Amino acid sequence: MRGLKIIMVPHIGVHTGIEEILAIGQATHLEQAKNINQISNDDVENIVLTKTQILIPGLIDTHIHAPQYPNCGLGYDKPLLEWLDHYTYKLEKKIPRSRTIQESRKTLDHGTTTSCYFGSLFYDSSMILVDAAIKHGQRALIGKINMTTLAPDDYVETPEESLSCTKKFIEDVQAKQNKLVQPIITPRFALSLDMDLMAELGQLAKQHGLHIQTHIAENVDELKMVEEKYRMPYATVYDKANLLTPKTVLAHGIYLTDDEVNLIVKRGTSIAHCPDSNTCLKSGLCDVRRLQAAGVKVGLGTDVAGGSSPSIVRTMKAALDTSVHISFREKNYQPLDYTDVFYLATLGGAEALALEEEIGNFAIGKDFDALIVDMDAEGSSVDFLLHCSPRELLQKFIYYGDDKNIKSVFVAGKSVK
Amino acid sequence: MRGLKIIMVPHIGVHTGIEEILAIGQATHLEQAKNINQISNDDVENIVLTKTQILIPGLIDTHIHAPQYPNCGLGYDKPLLEWLDHYTYKLEKKIPRSRTIQESRKTLDHGTTTSCYFGSLFYDSSMILVDAAIKHGQRALIGKINMTTLAPDDYVETPEESLSCTKKFIEDVQAKQNKLVQPIITPRFALSLDMDLMAELGQLAKQHGLHIQTHIAENVDELKMVEEKYRMPYATVYDKANLLTPKTVLAHGIYLTDDEVNLIVKRGTSIAHCPDSNTCLKSGLCDVRRLQAAGVKVGLGTDVAGGSSPSIVRTMKAALDTSVHISFREKNYQPLDYTDVFYLATLGGAEALALEEEIGNFAIGKDFDALIVDMDAEGSSVDFLLHCSPRELLQKFIYYGDDKNIKSVFVAGKSVK
Ligand SMILES: [Zn+2]
Ligand SMILES: [Zn+2]
Repeated sequence: MRGLKIIMVPHIGVHTGIEEILAIGQATHLEQAKNINQISNDDVENIVLTKTQILIPGLIDTHIHAPQYPNCGLGYDKPLLEWLDHYTYKLEKKIPRSRTIQESRKTLDHGTTTSCYFGSLFYDSSMILVDAAIKHGQRALIGKINMTTLAPDDYVETPEESLSCTKKFIEDVQAKQNKLVQPIITPRFALSLDMDLMAELGQLAKQHGLHIQTHIAENVDELKMVEEKYRMPYATVYDKANLLTPKTVLAHGIYLTDDEVNLIVKRGTSIAHCPDSNTCLKSGLCDVRRLQAAGVKVGLGTDVAGGSSPSIVRTMKAALDTSVHISFREKNYQPLDYTDVFYLATLGGAEALALEEEIGNFAIGKDFDALIVDMDAEGSSVDFLLHCSPRELLQKFIYYGDDKNIKSVFVAGKSVK
Repeated sequence: MRGLKIIMVPHIGVHTGIEEILAIGQATHLEQAKNINQISNDDVENIVLTKTQILIPGLIDTHIHAPQYPNCGLGYDKPLLEWLDHYTYKLEKKIPRSRTIQESRKTLDHGTTTSCYFGSLFYDSSMILVDAAIKHGQRALIGKINMTTLAPDDYVETPEESLSCTKKFIEDVQAKQNKLVQPIITPRFALSLDMDLMAELGQLAKQHGLHIQTHIAENVDELKMVEEKYRMPYATVYDKANLLTPKTVLAHGIYLTDDEVNLIVKRGTSIAHCPDSNTCLKSGLCDVRRLQAAGVKVGLGTDVAGGSSPSIVRTMKAALDTSVHISFREKNYQPLDYTDVFYLATLGGAEALALEEEIGNFAIGKDFDALIVDMDAEGSSVDFLLHCSPRELLQKFIYYGDDKNIKSVFVAGKSVK
């Protein structure tokens, strides 16, 4: 039972085993739980939070392109499809291995305990990312991208290559038997491949019970091209290929029609809301309230490097800003508040990735993925706390905290920062 | 001539005396300048930038409330007038002296070389801020607030008290004979005092040739109340009191009519654009392009604690986001890009504060207010720079850099960080 932790939050304690949460409650309840689980005090590490610290569930990034990280902040003067040509594909195909490896370290430092990664088109680069996540102890869904067209000649594959490479990638990731890291089927988006290949990927996902990720309805020009290519609604394209499942997460979804939203709800599919990316690339304002009201599960995504930062903290702020700006144009619209975006970044993200049985909040039996946030940390941009309540500390963290405020990171009970 | 610096930027050098910029040019030109100014090499400190560093003009915050800093990130679930009651006034009247003192240190660390501060209602607290700015070497305009109504009973003054206290404050600040710190006339906003007192303040400003700052057209409810109280357009209220001058900066100006904008242009008055505050307090989207097209001088303001952070870097990003979101609702609207917001944060800010003769960019004879920005700094959130050009480094700084990336801060040639 080594590695057992008791985190003492004022009034409430969280009691965790090596991986799982065993008990939550007053100090006396935790004592009882120790007895029930036959845990001796020698095996217990007590962590007592200071008045400037809070314990929160680990942050979940439901959409991020690992190899694009060096492009954060660059080239946002270009619209999506041009930006992909000028910046993204050029970088993805040449990205040095050493860089990709560090990406999971970077996001862990920013408090991302679970990350849903787009890798690259190449088996090697994608597998490096798998090894990096395992090495650093991050929970991750990692996909090798499928793309046969609409990219530079030396950064596409044939449908046959695409399928065989994906199969090998899945097998090899699963062979690692790491509980935290799983492969995910990753067709880039409807314009990057054709219906036949998408259908085969849908079949593959079904066979192996795999997660699926792709993009949808991000940009007006993209919509037009999808309509021209397939002559059917965007969501229907994916549905025809059996790519809309309860384990599918679609990035963006800004321009989904009501019919498409209803189809997505029917399939149990979720949306990765990427507000900073949608602003940086001038894609549009995605209305989270509308999606949630219809019953869509929604999480947050940085969409690095469409988003300018690998931080889900910054993404929470961007989600707030986007929602406030929607409220300026729509009468009686209640914008998201800090509790709403905190939900999106934690349990909402877990639901969006169909991992809500394991992570997303503190519940007995769930894995202990958590952050100790310290608003009075060394080098913190935030200070002058006076007598902030825990809720006020959380507000400050969401509005202008950063990686300096993330003191400790736990994934499945293991300290990884 | 001690303290002379030569900053070597690739291809271009900046050559500064103790306070002023003496020469800008190729290394050979700088040698000539040394000869002309009879400067010996012994008196010169050479600073050579690394490939991840850039030299930029100091950032200018044209609107910030120093005593409100501890409220950053808090209470944004409330609209403006309620927020003022619940958070702002309560804090301003009790803010510990030690906190206010540190505020100018904080903003300097974030790269703000010039700050236009609202102090508090009280002489003491406002004077503490003056002493702090002098101590830390920050360039600052500092105002004791005038407010006789619409605030708690123990946080208002009579018109007589207001005027005499303001006179004393001005005299005492000027008596310090600090070249960098000046008093500024600071009626809180049209609802906080009446026309007679405003007119007397206008007179006082004229007498002493002082700068003036206040708020305008920030919030729809505020507009209505101003209309009810004065029965004239908001800008006209200030104009009647002779408060619109070429040395006046007005915060916000979201809801100015075309007539009001034209009046402001005619008077040579400027606007402090506070995009993060306008979002956090749900005030509205301010259209900078519209103001600039009409001829208004515009700078950036954090509006702490309406804004959630004391960082002008974050404010540049917020200005980008706001402008992109305006472009979603207005056809053929060209949103601001990173060069535009960089202008707002530097020379635009200098113009807005009527300090463009002294600061805002690198020009011979101007004071040397500057930052060395290092995108590869210890603890930086930004990394993986590959082979970023100086312009790309600047983009990354604006999009997701922070105080960790500000390696050195110079005000009037003096190193203050
Ligand atoms: Zn994406
Ligand atoms: Zn203000």
